Amino acid sequence: MIPISIFGAGGLTGRELLTWLRHHPEARPVFITSDQHAGLAVPDVFPELPEYNDLKFSRHAEPCPEGSVAFLATPNATSLDLAPVLLEKGHHVIDLSGSFRIPEKELFEKFYGLQHSAFDLMDRAVYGMPEIYREKIKNAAFVSNPGCYPTGSILPLHFLGDYRDRVRQVIIDAKSGVSGAGGRTEDAGFSFQKVYENFRAYKVLKHQHTPEIQIHARQGLDRFRGPEENIDGPILLFTPHLLPIYRGILSTIVIEWKEEAPADLQEHMAKAISEEPFLRLLDSPEKVELNRVQNTNFVDLGLRSMGSITIIVSAIDNLVKGAAGQAIQNMNLMCGLDERTGLLAR
Amino acid sequence: MIPISIFGAGGLTGRELLTWLRHHPEARPVFITSDQHAGLAVPDVFPELPEYNDLKFSRHAEPCPEGSVAFLATPNATSLDLAPVLLEKGHHVIDLSGSFRIPEKELFEKFYGLQHSAFDLMDRAVYGMPEIYREKIKNAAFVSNPGCYPTGSILPLHFLGDYRDRVRQVIIDAKSGVSGAGGRTEDAGFSFQKVYENFRAYKVLKHQHTPEIQIHARQGLDRFRGPEENIDGPILLFTPHLLPIYRGILSTIVIEWKEEAPADLQEHMAKAISEEPFLRLLDSPEKVELNRVQNTNFVDLGLRSMGSITIIVSAIDNLVKGAAGQAIQNMNLMCGLDERTGLLAR
Amino acid sequence: MIPISIFGAGGLTGRELLTWLRHHPEARPVFITSDQHAGLAVPDVFPELPEYNDLKFSRHAEPCPEGSVAFLATPNATSLDLAPVLLEKGHHVIDLSGSFRIPEKELFEKFYGLQHSAFDLMDRAVYGMPEIYREKIKNAAFVSNPGCYPTGSILPLHFLGDYRDRVRQVIIDAKSGVSGAGGRTEDAGFSFQKVYENFRAYKVLKHQHTPEIQIHARQGLDRFRGPEENIDGPILLFTPHLLPIYRGILSTIVIEWKEEAPADLQEHMAKAISEEPFLRLLDSPEKVELNRVQNTNFVDLGLRSMGSITIIVSAIDNLVKGAAGQAIQNMNLMCGLDERTGLLAR
Amino acid sequence: MIPISIFGAGGLTGRELLTWLRHHPEARPVFITSDQHAGLAVPDVFPELPEYNDLKFSRHAEPCPEGSVAFLATPNATSLDLAPVLLEKGHHVIDLSGSFRIPEKELFEKFYGLQHSAFDLMDRAVYGMPEIYREKIKNAAFVSNPGCYPTGSILPLHFLGDYRDRVRQVIIDAKSGVSGAGGRTEDAGFSFQKVYENFRAYKVLKHQHTPEIQIHARQGLDRFRGPEENIDGPILLFTPHLLPIYRGILSTIVIEWKEEAPADLQEHMAKAISEEPFLRLLDSPEKVELNRVQNTNFVDLGLRSMGSITIIVSAIDNLVKGAAGQAIQNMNLMCGLDERTGLLAR
Repeated sequence: MIPISIFGAGGLTGRELLTWLRHHPEARPVFITSDQHAGLAVPDVFPELPEYNDLKFSRHAEPCPEGSVAFLATPNATSLDLAPVLLEKGHHVIDLSGSFRIPEKELFEKFYGLQHSAFDLMDRAVYGMPEIYREKIKNAAFVSNPGCYPTGSILPLHFLGDYRDRVRQVIIDAKSGVSGAGGRTEDAGFSFQKVYENFRAYKVLKHQHTPEIQIHARQGLDRFRGPEENIDGPILLFTPHLLPIYRGILSTIVIEWKEEAPADLQEHMAKAISEEPFLRLLDSPEKVELNRVQNTNFVDLGLRSMGSITIIVSAIDNLVKGAAGQAIQNMNLMCGLDERTGLLAR
Repeated sequence: MIPISIFGAGGLTGRELLTWLRHHPEARPVFITSDQHAGLAVPDVFPELPEYNDLKFSRHAEPCPEGSVAFLATPNATSLDLAPVLLEKGHHVIDLSGSFRIPEKELFEKFYGLQHSAFDLMDRAVYGMPEIYREKIKNAAFVSNPGCYPTGSILPLHFLGDYRDRVRQVIIDAKSGVSGAGGRTEDAGFSFQKVYENFRAYKVLKHQHTPEIQIHARQGLDRFRGPEENIDGPILLFTPHLLPIYRGILSTIVIEWKEEAPADLQEHMAKAISEEPFLRLLDSPEKVELNRVQNTNFVDLGLRSMGSITIIVSAIDNLVKGAAGQAIQNMNLMCGLDERTGLLAR
Repeated sequence: MIPISIFGAGGLTGRELLTWLRHHPEARPVFITSDQHAGLAVPDVFPELPEYNDLKFSRHAEPCPEGSVAFLATPNATSLDLAPVLLEKGHHVIDLSGSFRIPEKELFEKFYGLQHSAFDLMDRAVYGMPEIYREKIKNAAFVSNPGCYPTGSILPLHFLGDYRDRVRQVIIDAKSGVSGAGGRTEDAGFSFQKVYENFRAYKVLKHQHTPEIQIHARQGLDRFRGPEENIDGPILLFTPHLLPIYRGILSTIVIEWKEEAPADLQEHMAKAISEEPFLRLLDSPEKVELNRVQNTNFVDLGLRSMGSITIIVSAIDNLVKGAAGQAIQNMNLMCGLDERTGLLAR
Repeated sequence: MIPISIFGAGGLTGRELLTWLRHHPEARPVFITSDQHAGLAVPDVFPELPEYNDLKFSRHAEPCPEGSVAFLATPNATSLDLAPVLLEKGHHVIDLSGSFRIPEKELFEKFYGLQHSAFDLMDRAVYGMPEIYREKIKNAAFVSNPGCYPTGSILPLHFLGDYRDRVRQVIIDAKSGVSGAGGRTEDAGFSFQKVYENFRAYKVLKHQHTPEIQIHARQGLDRFRGPEENIDGPILLFTPHLLPIYRGILSTIVIEWKEEAPADLQEHMAKAISEEPFLRLLDSPEKVELNRVQNTNFVDLGLRSMGSITIIVSAIDNLVKGAAGQAIQNMNLMCGLDERTGLLAR
């Protein structure tokens, strides 16, 4: 059994990791941290996880078991502190924070408003999207797990495949449940009365997931750029919204092509993803809905074209394929397992 | 007092008309129809409207009082039958259906899947958006009330004013509560279990409100066109989504300019709408939310520009400014009243 | 016009008072306080209330206009401070807090965990439930407005009329939306994620509204008692629950009779409330639902008996008949107006 | 592996059975029926269950594999037809309908409005509540799986143990999400607009689960009786309500004792359930909430006493312990497995 250490296991992502790892035949959590819950057993904090009765929360500072794979479900600043130490000790590390997703220092610091204190590690950090970087991940000791919004946007754009260089512009309108919108329980903006029977956009043209999408959706080509950037590459816009639900992200992606939309795009993408265990291309964009992907590691896609336009709708569970599920998928690859292990059923 | 007849008063829009007219100092409902509820008094159907204790539902076929202003809150086909008859009898008619909003017959029949049996009336039908056609409405006997989605999209685009001819392309992503998405209570697709904790797009590139927006948002210029249309004019796309809430429509409108976005757009639009009683331009797009406009006749707007892009977020209550409220605003103008009459407080 | 002062106008109840007073033909808010919002105009805090553009929030400490009727929508402790001062100055005072609802000092201090610093005013405070104390209210200078839960429980029990002395025991199970459960927006227990798709009981056998119900539902008879009290009178239990909705309280009231339930109870109660403008007895308990009373000042009732048991279901809007609406109803009576004035339509 | 046949697998309960059986190490679905979905594979109907890609829906009439354990997730009338045939063929049968829960024919036909065509099988049907009838279930060929409401009410009452004969009266107020309230998706009463931001009681003093609770909660004692029944035994009342959520039932159970409530009830019940794998007694009734039990097979309990009254709050997931989970627990016992098998994690 692979011993697992989870730092920041007291949060939503940590709970999701624990939930899925219950079913993993080859891995088992042996060390978890939460400064807030230190000393408590898992069921004291998460009553719905009774099988972890013998597992107690430690403090971040405590040493994790040798040879364990370390998941960092910690805030950005904490990951910047922990990652170097754990790598130094020879742990395999999967960071679920945003700290190592953007390979451009200025861009990171601009969008995260945080100084990057461990940028020398950046070239060791493999971006943990198996559908794009599978081989690199298999040999990686350090994986930066993608953000939830980027996962739902990068995958459909990546699997345009050869057609990617015909893209003139991409406009993404994304909608997330509260568990994906980064709201802490104590935050008044996420009170029942501020969210229920309401809807709004946030961080318009400012969201930190934007450069992550712009860079990783164009691997091997000039990356997408923001409208303010004076570099080559097509413009990509991203606007997030807060849905009055708990989990799931649906993204409506409008692609403008330089000429007519490829006539065989549906077949082209179907072929491109045919080997991917967690991607499903449905036969119409209206069939893509959050109910189909909630509590699964799947990404559902549907598209329709007209003239020079294609609209792709994608849906994921932000806590699974958008966080914990993808992290386990990465661990599977890093440890030489079938990447589906423990991920087909919650 | 202006006598009001409401056809199809048993539906959501009819109920909203009755709700608002309670406070109208110059108008009073005297005749209402609903084949389903014929014979019942208003509070038998709508217990929350006890003040209409003496008003009973008649059948559509029954004659409405002479000289009354007729609101048609009826299905498209029913409006096509009723409008000619009522106009013939000399009634002022305000049609809340979609039957007379699109002045191009082929376009109407393509998007509505319905043959237009009264197209000869089309040139008498004034599109009932006071902010654009105020003077025409004042002298009109027949007004076609705008759709809910178009109201939230056309107004921000119209008030780009002189800058409208700098627009290269417009992409609208709209999200509506169930009361605006046309779901009947009996429709399984609108069951609690299919809507709650869910989200999806619908009628992608096919929604009947698309041509209405494309035509009326460009009054006096080449109209917006669909990507499949071989005519002049910039492309405008519209994608509707179903929110798991009851009322409100939020639209995220991405404008691509031919060059840089106008630097003074905020001031420009603030000036353009300064005289408009029901438009509010907030100082950031994040402040625009459904809670601010629900149960009001207001349209809230917020914008941000970057490079050649401007994103405008708009919010309305689909049942008020998107239906009943705007219809009353039109009636006020047709009857020589201050258009705000009865609309400042529900 | 009656000049109105509202202390604590920045909260949910204050906003509801402002909302309803828009339509009041005889009263107008002229002075409102909120230490948090001091200096701002009403629409700055409540955008949905544009008609109060000229009304600004003052601080609690500032003097309110002479001759104005003062509504206290303030916390218990603040009402205890303000009431004596305002009464001293000759204002008519309507207190919406819980400070003057319980005429037994020990009971108040036990359930509110607060020392009563103005108990000498208690005998001047008329309990503001018009259906029971109408004549007293007409002549009162100081009214204590009932709690939201008590309003939905006391009224059905009071209108048992002559049958009240046949009651052996009463068990009330009440469910409230978040706006009635006293949750502040900042309170983590009222975050979207803690309330949505969840349900729970709270303050079991400890809620401060219990003695209020026990005392006022039995006016003129031995009052109801808690199971721990060694006094005469039938036992009455009250258990509150938190509903994942915004507004409304539904109470399920189980009455055990000393003998068989009165055969004519439906007719008996229908007769008893026939003159009451805001009570509606429906023909079955299943028809009583929150949707029928939300945003109205009505109390809906329905009942069914079997053997020695009667179950009465009641529904109110906690912010209207349970707070602001009833307060305005009291003001109408205190000022010699028809009590329905301004309350038939929101 | 135990071969499993599921009749009526296309409904909510069928889907829940399939979901849980994914993790069962000793059992596997081999035959499922749904006249509506006949011919389709499971993922065609339930996309979230991709692992059943090779399992297709058959028609009810088709023969199920020899030696398979048959789960009937079918309507009452269908179970009355299928059970005799399947038992005749020697199958072990677990019926999840209400057809065999009430051992009194008149009572069944009165509350279900259905003639009982197979009452001769009644004495072979073991009531499938392991905590009460564990030994009988181990040797049973035919188990009648309890209703969702009864599960949450019977268990706390049963584990009063020796104190059960001190009970004078029980009043149960139960609240269920839509998946437990028997609403079909097509039913207008369960439309989003009729359920959302609403709450109501239903079937007051008429619900078919009432006699099931009255009989099985008093095994070995005079059963509880309805207020209309002239037999011995304490009165038990049950009132169901519809919550605007998807899953979970919370029951508030008021017990009136003949004398003072037992002082050691908390310890007494803790001891009584100490061996039960799926019962949890929390240290206060306020801690019992639906979020703790959703998607688990647990029953959470909390209690508080005062004078002659005890209030017990119970929470279950209606689709798990209230249906599919308990059915699997029964199958485990019938097949000689540890009853927890496959039920600790979804």
